[in-house]
Amino acid sequence: MDMSLINTIVVAGGTHGNERTGVRLVQKWMEHPECYSSLCSAKVDLVLSNPEAVRLNRRYRDFDLNRAFSQTCLDVNADPQQYEFRRAKELNALYGPKGAATKTDLLLDVHNTGSNMGNCLIVSARDPFTMRASAVLTQEFDDAWIYYQPEERSASPYFGTVAKADVCIEIGPQQHGTLDAAIFEETERLVKRYLELAEEWNRGELQKRAPIKVDVYTQFKDLGYPKPQGGGAIQAMIHPELLGKDYRELKSGDKLFRTFDGKDILYEGESPVYPIFISEPAYYEKDIAMSLTKKTVEEW
Amino acid sequence: MDMSLINTIVVAGGTHGNERTGVRLVQKWMEHPECYSSLCSAKVDLVLSNPEAVRLNRRYRDFDLNRAFSQTCLDVNADPQQYEFRRAKELNALYGPKGAATKTDLLLDVHNTGSNMGNCLIVSARDPFTMRASAVLTQEFDDAWIYYQPEERSASPYFGTVAKADVCIEIGPQQHGTLDAAIFEETERLVKRYLELAEEWNRGELQKRAPIKVDVYTQFKDLGYPKPQGGGAIQAMIHPELLGKDYRELKSGDKLFRTFDGKDILYEGESPVYPIFISEPAYYEKDIAMSLTKKTVEEW
Repeated sequence: MDMSLINTIVVAGGTHGNERTGVRLVQKWMEHPECYSSLCSAKVDLVLSNPEAVRLNRRYRDFDLNRAFSQTCLDVNADPQQYEFRRAKELNALYGPKGAATKTDLLLDVHNTGSNMGNCLIVSARDPFTMRASAVLTQEFDDAWIYYQPEERSASPYFGTVAKADVCIEIGPQQHGTLDAAIFEETERLVKRYLELAEEWNRGELQKRAPIKVDVYTQFKDLGYPKPQGGGAIQAMIHPELLGKDYRELKSGDKLFRTFDGKDILYEGESPVYPIFISEPAYYEKDIAMSLTKKTVEEW
Repeated sequence: MDMSLINTIVVAGGTHGNERTGVRLVQKWMEHPECYSSLCSAKVDLVLSNPEAVRLNRRYRDFDLNRAFSQTCLDVNADPQQYEFRRAKELNALYGPKGAATKTDLLLDVHNTGSNMGNCLIVSARDPFTMRASAVLTQEFDDAWIYYQPEERSASPYFGTVAKADVCIEIGPQQHGTLDAAIFEETERLVKRYLELAEEWNRGELQKRAPIKVDVYTQFKDLGYPKPQGGGAIQAMIHPELLGKDYRELKSGDKLFRTFDGKDILYEGESPVYPIFISEPAYYEKDIAMSLTKKTVEEW
């Protein structure tokens, strides 16, 4: 996104049906527009992204909706069998189309994770508004972090990429299918602040704030669980000394996994890295034990 | 169970397919019988109770297996459509039949909960072996508790009730579908200790230990979430001051729920009570926000 105005914002919840904070936040705001309507002059649309998964209280029905927004998926002509592929095309028609002609300037997609991720602000482009606003929020909120997933926007499978700019607001730890009142209230404050900061941006004020020094955690690579050659059940668990230690430095030789008969498996690889999404329940089926990131200190 | 010998023990995991500690413990012991074979002279059978749910990494496929063992369910003559009703009849044939003629003296069923329940030992009968052994374990293990569910054994829907005596070992917090190495290792130690204590019982030694003073939390009633009259989505979350506070005293006037617009709902009712299974993910669909218990101090 360039330095132009933010005229259209989408706030999404329930992109994963069992991540209930976003579901209930969007439902609350739909019933009570006064909760957000005065915060900024942009047009704000609310959307429950995956109503079928929300109904089932499951991550998805047939396919992970938040992996269905690559241009390739969206371009499939035939009417797809799987519900989420159809829904992705529908959402893209409503709020996209993905690419330069998109109707949406900013998309805020509210997620939860079971991992100890705190208030994680996932940015998919290093555009000045999302970086600057997110940097402000790391100062205003405890346990707030910026995680950057560098991906070619057209290939990226995430819902947010149908907009010019987006933040995936990923709050944890919260168990899927449940609610946590403290997390609900903090998430609501966080989303409101993005709307207020968009207004500040439109008035040209956010641009004038003094630059903020901030840690940026950039995706390096995903790490799977140890498995037997040829496949099969996982052979080890996250090491007890690592579980819950998202964003902490991990170096070659540090404890990584523990086998079922009590043996330690050590990390060997590029160091230091900073693991996140450690033991996220939804990622077991994706064979992701954690995502490794690299940390840079930046000014925004 | 009377004071007779414990000749046959069943150790079960995966009664709920996404409670992975029991699943992996039973799988490990099946591959490595030396882990348990020398601990007691009783015949020990291992069983993965719901292999279909284990495969799906879900609580159940069609119906909650651990609600399918009432005599009424087991007596249905026709071949039931739902997988879990069929599987319950199968397990009852293998390890029961429920009632006086059962083949199994003791059933240890290993579960996980997302609630902050620690090492919860759920007993369904106040028989001298399970009470005494569980009392010993509350001394040997940190954060170990006895929860008594008084139910007429024939009507009780739990797998354990196909045996003469049973303990449902319910460990948390662990998110469903995940593993936690520290919990895995502690659970294995706990199950092993039950087998050793069964041996001690059979030698007449457990009976001779000095009595142990222990808190027993007895099921009083389940509490649902506030809902609109006529049904619909829940209107409030567990209060932040209550979340995670399983086994703590709750009195009339204490904070119970928080609505989505930030209002507190107070507990009104018999006091004191001791809530457990607070915000257990699997109980949202059962409309159970928590179970209230009453505490007694007993000697076993």
